[in-house]
Amino acid sequence: MTRTIITAALTGVLATRDQCPAIPYTPREIGEEAARAAHEGAAIVHIHARTPEGGPDWSVETFAQIYAEVRARSDVIINFSTGAVGIPAEQRIAHIKELKPEIAALNMGSMNYAIYSERRKEFIHDHVFANPFKDISFFLKTMNDANIRPELECFDTGHIGNTRPLIHQGILNPPYQFSLIMGVLGGIPASTRHLVDQVDTLPPQSHWQDLEEGRMAKSNGELVAKAARMCKELGTEVASPADARKQLGLEPEPRPAPAMNRTN
Amino acid sequence: MTRTIITAALTGVLATRDQCPAIPYTPREIGEEAARAAHEGAAIVHIHARTPEGGPDWSVETFAQIYAEVRARSDVIINFSTGAVGIPAEQRIAHIKELKPEIAALNMGSMNYAIYSERRKEFIHDHVFANPFKDISFFLKTMNDANIRPELECFDTGHIGNTRPLIHQGILNPPYQFSLIMGVLGGIPASTRHLVDQVDTLPPQSHWQDLEEGRMAKSNGELVAKAARMCKELGTEVASPADARKQLGLEPEPRPAPAMNRTN
Amino acid sequence: MTRTIITAALTGVLATRDQCPAIPYTPREIGEEAARAAHEGAAIVHIHARTPEGGPDWSVETFAQIYAEVRARSDVIINFSTGAVGIPAEQRIAHIKELKPEIAALNMGSMNYAIYSERRKEFIHDHVFANPFKDISFFLKTMNDANIRPELECFDTGHIGNTRPLIHQGILNPPYQFSLIMGVLGGIPASTRHLVDQVDTLPPQSHWQDLEEGRMAKSNGELVAKAARMCKELGTEVASPADARKQLGLEPEPRPAPAMNRTN
Amino acid sequence: MTRTIITAALTGVLATRDQCPAIPYTPREIGEEAARAAHEGAAIVHIHARTPEGGPDWSVETFAQIYAEVRARSDVIINFSTGAVGIPAEQRIAHIKELKPEIAALNMGSMNYAIYSERRKEFIHDHVFANPFKDISFFLKTMNDANIRPELECFDTGHIGNTRPLIHQGILNPPYQFSLIMGVLGGIPASTRHLVDQVDTLPPQSHWQDLEEGRMAKSNGELVAKAARMCKELGTEVASPADARKQLGLEPEPRPAPAMNRTN
Repeated sequence: MTRTIITAALTGVLATRDQCPAIPYTPREIGEEAARAAHEGAAIVHIHARTPEGGPDWSVETFAQIYAEVRARSDVIINFSTGAVGIPAEQRIAHIKELKPEIAALNMGSMNYAIYSERRKEFIHDHVFANPFKDISFFLKTMNDANIRPELECFDTGHIGNTRPLIHQGILNPPYQFSLIMGVLGGIPASTRHLVDQVDTLPPQSHWQDLEEGRMAKSNGELVAKAARMCKELGTEVASPADARKQLGLEPEPRPAPAMNRTN
Repeated sequence: MTRTIITAALTGVLATRDQCPAIPYTPREIGEEAARAAHEGAAIVHIHARTPEGGPDWSVETFAQIYAEVRARSDVIINFSTGAVGIPAEQRIAHIKELKPEIAALNMGSMNYAIYSERRKEFIHDHVFANPFKDISFFLKTMNDANIRPELECFDTGHIGNTRPLIHQGILNPPYQFSLIMGVLGGIPASTRHLVDQVDTLPPQSHWQDLEEGRMAKSNGELVAKAARMCKELGTEVASPADARKQLGLEPEPRPAPAMNRTN
Repeated sequence: MTRTIITAALTGVLATRDQCPAIPYTPREIGEEAARAAHEGAAIVHIHARTPEGGPDWSVETFAQIYAEVRARSDVIINFSTGAVGIPAEQRIAHIKELKPEIAALNMGSMNYAIYSERRKEFIHDHVFANPFKDISFFLKTMNDANIRPELECFDTGHIGNTRPLIHQGILNPPYQFSLIMGVLGGIPASTRHLVDQVDTLPPQSHWQDLEEGRMAKSNGELVAKAARMCKELGTEVASPADARKQLGLEPEPRPAPAMNRTN
Repeated sequence: MTRTIITAALTGVLATRDQCPAIPYTPREIGEEAARAAHEGAAIVHIHARTPEGGPDWSVETFAQIYAEVRARSDVIINFSTGAVGIPAEQRIAHIKELKPEIAALNMGSMNYAIYSERRKEFIHDHVFANPFKDISFFLKTMNDANIRPELECFDTGHIGNTRPLIHQGILNPPYQFSLIMGVLGGIPASTRHLVDQVDTLPPQSHWQDLEEGRMAKSNGELVAKAARMCKELGTEVASPADARKQLGLEPEPRPAPAMNRTN
C-alpha cells in the first residue's frame, strides 16, 4: 500500500519570530525542530537557512551545520531550498553542490511573491521571484551531476508546463517529484478546483505534494502530529523516512552529513 | 443579445517578418492592417509599436502616429500594449498617459516569457517578464486618472488572483475586462480544462476574452474574417466597434487621435 | 462562523447485518443509534425504516415508532428517506405526510442502483431507481404543504440539473439543501474532480453535503466521532442540532414526535 | 493526422415534423437524407426508424428497408439506435441482431428523459428511460456475437462509470467508442465544464463524440456542411467513411445491405 509521506517545511521563507515565535533560526534549533517533526511522523524536512537574526542565509557553512545537526538526531530525508531573491544563481546552488542532500528544491518559474495586508490595505512584501529557464537549467544540471532529486516547486499552472521543454531536452527525468504550492499571493490561489486542475496536468510518473502557505503554525511537531492523525483517520499509513525513500525511488540509506573542509 | 467582440492583436510582441512576412511595422502599415481587421469584423485592435526594423518601440511619437493612422481609417477601439522587458515603468506607460486610448493592456503578474525550439532542443527566447505589484499599481492609477479601461492581461491563474488586493484597495473597479492568454511558454498551457478553470475563477462583473498565441497567421484581416465566419456558424453576431463600446461600458464615441505638440 | 453539520445515515438502504453487524433494525435500535450519533456530534440523522428481519419497511407506524424513539433520547434533526423501488409514490411519501419530520429526502432523478462484485464478477443488485418528474413534483408539493424541508438527493450531475424546471415552476424554493451522493454504481463515481464539478453546478443559495457510500462502518457513533475529530483538526466547529437548525433556516425548535391515532 | 469524424443523427428520437419539417420518416426519405449528409461530410449516420406517421418504429423490416435505401446511395457508416421506452429488450435489439450494422447504439444507464416548456411551465414529456445492467449486458453480448461496434451512449457521468463492471467482466473491450450526449433534461446539462469533466473520466483507449440536443435543425445536410466548414476553419480535416473506418478500427469495407428473407 502507498503510504502518505509528510514533509515539514521547518522554517518557511519569509516569516520571522515576530510573526510566529516557534520558527527555528540556528542550525541547532533547526536540527531539534527536524527531530521533533520526524518523531511525529515527517519523512522529509524542507529547510531554508537563517542568520541568527532570522534573515535568509545562503552560506554553505550554515547549511553544513544544519545538515550535521539534523543528521545527528534523525535519519529524516533532507530537502534544501534553493529559492532566493537578488542572489546570483551560483550562490543559490552552492550548498546543494557541496552538501548533496537527497532532495533539493527547484523553483520552476517566475512570479510575484507578495504579501498583502487587508487591514493596512497595503502590500507588505512585493518582489519578483525570478527563475528564468537559464537558471532552472543550470540548477537542474548541477543536481543531476550530484545525484540529487529535484523537487519541482510549482506556484502556478505554468510552472508545471515549464517541465515540458526540460523533459524534451532530456535533463529532467522521471519520476517527477512535484510540490504544488498554493495560496502565495502572485501564484495560484488555494482552492480544491485549482488543485484538481493542476494534478490533472502533471506528466505521467509524477509524485506530488500540496503545500498551502499562510497558516500560522505553533510548532512543526504539532502540525506534523495533526497531519499524521488525519492520515490515520482517513485510513492511510504514514511513511517513515525509509518508506519514503523506497516510494520515491531514492537511495535506501540516509546520506551522512558531509565533512566540511573549511575552518570556521 | 450579447454580441461577440473580436480583438485583433495586430503586431504581436516578439515575432518578426522573418517568421511571418505579414507583420506590420510602420505606423502606416499598422493603420492599414487595423482598417483591414476592422473591415472583416474586429471591434478592437491591440497594438505594440515597432521600429522600422521590427524591434520594439516605446516612443510616444510612434504611438501617436499609429493612433492617427488607425483613426484616419476606422473607428475601431484602440488598445495599446504596456508590456515590455527591461524598460522603466515610467516609459512603459508614457504613451498611455499622453495619448489616452480607450483601452490599455495591464499585465497582471510576473512570469518567464520564453520560446523553445523542439527541433533545435534549445530556448530561443528566455526572459523574466517582471510585473511586481508596485508597477501594476502605478500603471493602474495612471490609467484611472486618464479614464482608460485597463485590459487585465493574465498569462496564468495567479495573475487572475492578483486582482484581489487591487479590488480590495479600491483602485481596480468593475466591470473587469480580462484577457486570458494561454500557450505562452512560462504561462499556463493552452487547454480547454485550464480555460474552464480560469473562467470559473473570475470575479463577478467580468468580461473575458481568450487569446491563444503561437499560431502562424497570414494576415490579420484573414484571421479576423475566419473568426467572424465561425461566430456566424455558431449563431452569434459579431459586435461592431459601437456595439463593443456599449457592451463593455466604454464611452459611446471613438476618441479622436490626440494632437501631438511635438515636431517630428 | 459557519459550523460543519454532520449527518449520520444510520441504516443505509441495502446493507444488512450479514454485511455489517452494527446496522440497527428496530425502532428502538435506531433510536439508540441516533442518540449515540448525536452524542458524538451529528446534528442530523437520515433514516430508512427496516422490518425486524432487516428488509425495507414503509409503514407509517414503524416510522412513527422510530420518530418517538429518537425524540425520546435526543433533539437531533430527523430526516426520513422516501427512496424506494417498486413501491407506489403515495406509499413512499405517506410517513412524511403524516409525521412531518423537519427534513425528508427527495430523490431528484432516475438511475440504475446496482452493486457489482469484483470477486464474483457479477452484479449483486441491479434495479432501476425510477423517479420521474411526476413523482418528484408530487413528493415536493406534499413536503411544501407539510412545511418539510426537502433534502435534494442527487446521485449524478443530471439530478442537479433537474432542479431547474422545478425552480422555474416555483415549487422548489431556496435555500436549496443538496445531498451529493457519490460512488453508487449507476450514479456518479466518487472523485474529487467530480465533486468540484458538481458543487460548481449548484444554483445560488444552496447548502450541500457529500455522502460517499461503500465504506464498511463499525458503528454510526464511531464514524461520527471520527468526522467530528477531523473537523476539529481542520479548525472548523461542529454544529449542534440547534446550530444546524439556524444555519439551514429550519424552525428553531425540534418537532416533537407526533401522537399516532392508530391502535396497534 | 487524426481527422474529425462527423456523425449525423438523421431523425432524432422524439421530434416530429410539427416541430421541425425537415425530419425524414420513410426509409426512402432517411436514405436520401443519409446521402445528403454523407455528401456534405458525415462519415456516420445515426438512425432511429419511424412509422410513416412519424412515431417510433421497431420492426426489423423497416430497419432493413432503411439499410438498403442508405447503402444504395452511399458507403456511409450505419449506426442504428437501440433506445426505446416501454419496449421489451428482445425487440429493442432484434434489428441489430439481424441486420448487423457496423455500429449500434448502447444506452449505458437509466435516467429521466423529459422535455419542459418554460412558456407553458409544464413538462411536455416525462418518462423513465430504463436501462438496467441486465439489459445493457444482454445488448452488449448480442452485439459482440454479431461483430457490431457498440457506441456507448452516455447521458450523464454515471453512465460512463457504468462501463467499469462490464470492462471488468471482459464483455466490453477497447477501443471504447463513447457518445457523450449533453443537454437532455434528466441527463447532464450542456456546459464546457461538464464536458471536460466527462472526457477526463473516460477509460484509456477511448474515442468520443459530443452530441448536444435541443437545437432546431433545418436539414441534416445543412448542419453537416456547417460542421465541416468549422472543421476546415479550425484546421482539421474531415474524415470520409473510409477514414473513419480506419480510425475507429472498424472493418475496411462497408457492410452491404442484408437480403431479407421475408416477403413484404
